[in-house]
Amino acid sequence: MNKRKIINDPVYGFITISSDLLYDLVDHPFLQRLRRIKQLGLADIVYPGALHTRFHHALGAMHLMSQALRALQEKGHLIWEPELEAAQAAILLHDLGHGPFSHVLESVMLPGVEHESITLAMMKELNRQMNGRLDIAIQMFEGTYPRKFFHQMISSQLDMDRMDYLNRDSFYTGVIEGSIGADRLIKMLDISHDQLVIEEKGLLSIENFLHARRLMYWQVYLHKTLLSAQAMLTQILFRARELVQNGEKLFATPDFERFLHNEFKLEDFDTLPDLMEAFNGLDDNDVWASVKGWKTHQDPVLSVLCRKLLNRDLFKIQFYKEPPGNEVLEPLKKQLRSAGVKEEELHFFLIEGETANLSYAKEQDPIRVKMKNGVLLDIADASDIPTIEALTKIVRKYYVCWAKNVSLRG
Amino acid sequence: MNKRKIINDPVYGFITISSDLLYDLVDHPFLQRLRRIKQLGLADIVYPGALHTRFHHALGAMHLMSQALRALQEKGHLIWEPELEAAQAAILLHDLGHGPFSHVLESVMLPGVEHESITLAMMKELNRQMNGRLDIAIQMFEGTYPRKFFHQMISSQLDMDRMDYLNRDSFYTGVIEGSIGADRLIKMLDISHDQLVIEEKGLLSIENFLHARRLMYWQVYLHKTLLSAQAMLTQILFRARELVQNGEKLFATPDFERFLHNEFKLEDFDTLPDLMEAFNGLDDNDVWASVKGWKTHQDPVLSVLCRKLLNRDLFKIQFYKEPPGNEVLEPLKKQLRSAGVKEEELHFFLIEGETANLSYAKEQDPIRVKMKNGVLLDIADASDIPTIEALTKIVRKYYVCWAKNVSLRG
Amino acid sequence: MNKRKIINDPVYGFITISSDLLYDLVDHPFLQRLRRIKQLGLADIVYPGALHTRFHHALGAMHLMSQALRALQEKGHLIWEPELEAAQAAILLHDLGHGPFSHVLESVMLPGVEHESITLAMMKELNRQMNGRLDIAIQMFEGTYPRKFFHQMISSQLDMDRMDYLNRDSFYTGVIEGSIGADRLIKMLDISHDQLVIEEKGLLSIENFLHARRLMYWQVYLHKTLLSAQAMLTQILFRARELVQNGEKLFATPDFERFLHNEFKLEDFDTLPDLMEAFNGLDDNDVWASVKGWKTHQDPVLSVLCRKLLNRDLFKIQFYKEPPGNEVLEPLKKQLRSAGVKEEELHFFLIEGETANLSYAKEQDPIRVKMKNGVLLDIADASDIPTIEALTKIVRKYYVCWAKNVSLRG
Amino acid sequence: MNKRKIINDPVYGFITISSDLLYDLVDHPFLQRLRRIKQLGLADIVYPGALHTRFHHALGAMHLMSQALRALQEKGHLIWEPELEAAQAAILLHDLGHGPFSHVLESVMLPGVEHESITLAMMKELNRQMNGRLDIAIQMFEGTYPRKFFHQMISSQLDMDRMDYLNRDSFYTGVIEGSIGADRLIKMLDISHDQLVIEEKGLLSIENFLHARRLMYWQVYLHKTLLSAQAMLTQILFRARELVQNGEKLFATPDFERFLHNEFKLEDFDTLPDLMEAFNGLDDNDVWASVKGWKTHQDPVLSVLCRKLLNRDLFKIQFYKEPPGNEVLEPLKKQLRSAGVKEEELHFFLIEGETANLSYAKEQDPIRVKMKNGVLLDIADASDIPTIEALTKIVRKYYVCWAKNVSLRG
Repeated sequence: MNKRKIINDPVYGFITISSDLLYDLVDHPFLQRLRRIKQLGLADIVYPGALHTRFHHALGAMHLMSQALRALQEKGHLIWEPELEAAQAAILLHDLGHGPFSHVLESVMLPGVEHESITLAMMKELNRQMNGRLDIAIQMFEGTYPRKFFHQMISSQLDMDRMDYLNRDSFYTGVIEGSIGADRLIKMLDISHDQLVIEEKGLLSIENFLHARRLMYWQVYLHKTLLSAQAMLTQILFRARELVQNGEKLFATPDFERFLHNEFKLEDFDTLPDLMEAFNGLDDNDVWASVKGWKTHQDPVLSVLCRKLLNRDLFKIQFYKEPPGNEVLEPLKKQLRSAGVKEEELHFFLIEGETANLSYAKEQDPIRVKMKNGVLLDIADASDIPTIEALTKIVRKYYVCWAKNVSLRG
Repeated sequence: MNKRKIINDPVYGFITISSDLLYDLVDHPFLQRLRRIKQLGLADIVYPGALHTRFHHALGAMHLMSQALRALQEKGHLIWEPELEAAQAAILLHDLGHGPFSHVLESVMLPGVEHESITLAMMKELNRQMNGRLDIAIQMFEGTYPRKFFHQMISSQLDMDRMDYLNRDSFYTGVIEGSIGADRLIKMLDISHDQLVIEEKGLLSIENFLHARRLMYWQVYLHKTLLSAQAMLTQILFRARELVQNGEKLFATPDFERFLHNEFKLEDFDTLPDLMEAFNGLDDNDVWASVKGWKTHQDPVLSVLCRKLLNRDLFKIQFYKEPPGNEVLEPLKKQLRSAGVKEEELHFFLIEGETANLSYAKEQDPIRVKMKNGVLLDIADASDIPTIEALTKIVRKYYVCWAKNVSLRG
Repeated sequence: MNKRKIINDPVYGFITISSDLLYDLVDHPFLQRLRRIKQLGLADIVYPGALHTRFHHALGAMHLMSQALRALQEKGHLIWEPELEAAQAAILLHDLGHGPFSHVLESVMLPGVEHESITLAMMKELNRQMNGRLDIAIQMFEGTYPRKFFHQMISSQLDMDRMDYLNRDSFYTGVIEGSIGADRLIKMLDISHDQLVIEEKGLLSIENFLHARRLMYWQVYLHKTLLSAQAMLTQILFRARELVQNGEKLFATPDFERFLHNEFKLEDFDTLPDLMEAFNGLDDNDVWASVKGWKTHQDPVLSVLCRKLLNRDLFKIQFYKEPPGNEVLEPLKKQLRSAGVKEEELHFFLIEGETANLSYAKEQDPIRVKMKNGVLLDIADASDIPTIEALTKIVRKYYVCWAKNVSLRG
Repeated sequence: MNKRKIINDPVYGFITISSDLLYDLVDHPFLQRLRRIKQLGLADIVYPGALHTRFHHALGAMHLMSQALRALQEKGHLIWEPELEAAQAAILLHDLGHGPFSHVLESVMLPGVEHESITLAMMKELNRQMNGRLDIAIQMFEGTYPRKFFHQMISSQLDMDRMDYLNRDSFYTGVIEGSIGADRLIKMLDISHDQLVIEEKGLLSIENFLHARRLMYWQVYLHKTLLSAQAMLTQILFRARELVQNGEKLFATPDFERFLHNEFKLEDFDTLPDLMEAFNGLDDNDVWASVKGWKTHQDPVLSVLCRKLLNRDLFKIQFYKEPPGNEVLEPLKKQLRSAGVKEEELHFFLIEGETANLSYAKEQDPIRVKMKNGVLLDIADASDIPTIEALTKIVRKYYVCWAKNVSLRG
């Protein structure tokens, strides 16, 4: 039976699943779950088109991987078919360990557990089920495969993960200025000294990539309204857990209930045989169904927060260059107190946070450019473009968000 | 306070909310719920990009309405600002009455209740809350407003509803051949004798519209795999209700539980004061959360069906030109029986259905063309294009879908 | 030296020139001339964006050829690198023999000489210069290469020529409804019994292709205004030749002068050693420069026609289902006579013509579909789609065009 | 007779000609000539799709003007219909004074004459023919109309000219990273103190605009290969003029001949009654037809240069940060001398030049931002974006280009 398959994709036109192994992976419940987890979590609250899933992103990254490897082959680099398949498998699976509303939920439910670690655990489980057919893919993912550039295509400044998500997020949000021109970037990739590099003639494309990425940060990922909604969902989950710990009864979907009642650690995935399956039972629906279930809960903190989020009655939010002091916070607290919020519950309605565009950090993982004379240079040195530095500067912002029209008085 | 707002839309670039009233409607929980209901239900099982919501569609239809009315104004037709706003409000609200997985859920939970009737009830409730500001919009929706063409822009062969959904569905599925060219169609609209008509020079555009619509039917709306998934979800809901009626305990989200336990009629929306709110509590998350909750239920029929749907292990499906007879059904039944399916449960695993592209029915609501000499003709008469007839023919197909690898033996 | 090159293309993103031979062909003066010949001749008079050249089309067709052959390779068909290069070369060169404003100029200057014959002569000359490196490409072009499907990819209902020009013409005219979805079509191609066929699951795509092609005919290729402008240019050239034959002095560019003074036959390309070079000296600029040079010529017929064409003061045009009789023509003639047009010059200002969409003729070159059971069927038989017949019907129209505001009185 | 007309445009979908006056202007020979002048001159030598004309650009800029003015109206600014029409007329006509291959030809044929001055002369002639219907448009163009922001929409950092050409050049070259997002920019425009400003929430859009503009400069307008081709055409024209001045006979189209034999000044347009008509007779075809006519001229300098340009056998080019000295030039000269180039003709085959991206000069015409508190700030001050400075820095480069394989030995 030929499992080759073509999938329509608004972003790239078509995505081809090019081998039986890849087909079986796509078909597996681990991948199918990602159909029910949105790539951008709550972002559709600002950009109503931003509903694309981690499943679609995984397919897209696999597509770019095959495009990029073919382009490298055409430049004369030897890449074996098993390597081609393994690299596609690795990038297809690279997000398995994400929960719904990733950073939000993880910070509450699985503090200290990195999603990459869960991904790796799930890849190993898959490899077990598939009798070792993922050995190379896992090596590439972990960075232990001898040819290092494969790992860089999975995880680096120019990896296929980033290229697809920037591309896809720009497309579905409708923020077209954030388009990175993945097509052209991929044609500019090369390998030198077993490193993924960019050709000199691709300098302007890289500059454009950095620019687009920066724009996506401020326009989408760190959008004020989105940060506010995320803060609200975080507080909802903290409150729910607090109530559960105090012995209150709370509606929850079966798999979600387990995570609400426990704080698991990475080791638990090894020792509790059914934990991985429970984790794989979690998706966006559990969170929304629970929030909806809690909107009439007797605890006013929980129910007010849930109703506000469901009806998009979001907290106000304000950015600051420095952590805001009492002159900012005190008046807001006063307001909340007079609306009936208790002192120990103030933090549910007045949230301080910090955010930054960690878009390009030279030290750890530079973008390397192969000059026409063969020399490799860091992008910032290769370019006579004065903007690189500006584009790659980390900007940190502080914010406060708070409920404006809340009333907790009986 | 100015509530004017611009929303990014991958399909049209930007959508403008042009008045306070429209802003308040978009903001209302009735509209916000539509954020959580996908326009195409289960279609992302075939087209992973097809995740757009009824909320986004409603905004898009409102946008097209404003474009179309402006184009008519430029042709010299007098349209008052209150009419412009009312027409936009009406189209914005036209889908309020849809439940999640519309036709699937309604056929099981609300048989005999048309979603248009629920929409109207909800519009009236909104109008009550807004002190009559929706009077004209409701008249336009119902068709009682004196200038009839407004109603045709909300509901007819060339209404803004259809234009947006065909456009949007084509975009998000990636089936670009289904693009109807809404831009051009809108520029070709005119009013004649208080009827919405198309200019003669728009004949080719209309032909293209009919062609694209037909293609969308067969490529998307009636796609085999989608029909199969819908049939499965329908059977899941029937089984769940059967179990509930037999007194079995079943996990469900609170609002969904109420609909699972009762079979409401349209009148109940009037007599049960909180029914509308419960209805407005229902969205895709309730259905998915429940299906996920049932995947380990002790009833094997229910749990097997749920697991299969969640993991995309779908029923096989076959089309027939005539209703298939025993020579088709008997061998399949035999197979199922030997897999342990009981006689009275066969219909959960072997489903017969019928489908048709009801794309253009001349009789009830013709597309009218205004010839250069001023005469109005039905499209089929106006065109020397021999394809109109072919494009508007209703094609009926029968199908059978069945579980292939099921096993219900202990 | 590596001659591999990537070219930006608004239609496909990028076009890769994948071998030294192809690079040398693109670089050759024969191909470079096509930079100065627009694909759609006078069509920018209706669609101001329709300025794309035969050069760009040749590159695009080469691109689609490489895409299509790679897709066939992925389906398991063996295609050797030399075949891949030859097929690309053949399609790259397939239009060499076109003159400027192809059908217009050829009908006047080279009556009875088919442009395919000139193409072949030029390909042979190229092959001579390149020491036989085009042997296979020429065989494929002529249809003598043993594997027949290659010829079908160069010249048949589904050839890469047609796919690119429909795609490209739709793009540059802005008639987006004419988009054929080349991407998808190419993925549906297959080879069976050494024939180019389409997979059964591509039926809807083929229907869409036929529909789009038909639309492009009526909306673009046979657009009234374009037919009128073409008729005018034809008459200008006839008049110019008439004057030259009567010994009048006429401005012309050097290469164009030669064709104005002589009526060459195909054989002359063999016997006159410099004729091919002179032919290769002809492009759009010669025609426009001459028309501009003639706008003040003392012959009023010539100068009036030229001024009208330059300033887009075009003839009126009317379509008829039957060849129009005297009741149509006589009043127009009368009008022209009273405007000072001499009897023997009437045909310069009143032109009769006939046109048809020869889009799909079943007999000579059917589109074949490979059904899932392996059988090959003609598209019209394979499809239960009732529109195929309608889409492929040849529609013939007659037209008259005439000068409206002409005055030839001293 | 209603002259309202809709024109297909691949960039914006449709362009509407919204009044009789605008229709008559589009129809006038002055505008129709621009159909035959490419916006980007020789750029199709690098980007084969870059064939769009100044005519199409003029229509596009008119379209953006109407969009922008409507957006301003929706924000509550009063704009009268006559102003709306005048602003559209002004931008439609703003490029009338361009000759073919604008900067190239002007530097040789009309040194010291600014094309804006010719534009103004032609606008006045049009106004005369139209009995003063262009009075307001001319005031807006000249900057004497009382409401100054109209002039800024025609000529400033954010004028509709720039927005359309950046947009259109990006589209037709296929350099999609150069897309400026004109849609969004236009929605962010506002008027404050009779100045065209951008809203604070448009800051990221402006940054993107500056970035895209910079990219277009280096990727397109100042592309090495294009600079080389322009240098060659310049030298061809200098040589042609030199030969003519020495009494040599040279083929040329009639209107072009006049400019080849004379060096006109701006005043001549007033004193020579037919000069404007002759100027309006010039377009790309004259230049190409002449270059083609000269390719066999007996002067080897002229004919060699022409053949090289026609067959895209371009000069090599090298950039330098400082004006290159003898260590660069001498070896090249030596090479050319040994190829038979005479000392006094060396400058035809070895050309020095200088180029810069004059993209944003703060002093003369700043982009102003209207902050939420109402204050107007220069973009560089309004933004906490560290890239503005980098994006607006003027970078100057020096280049040398020279013939590589030339041979002028008998």
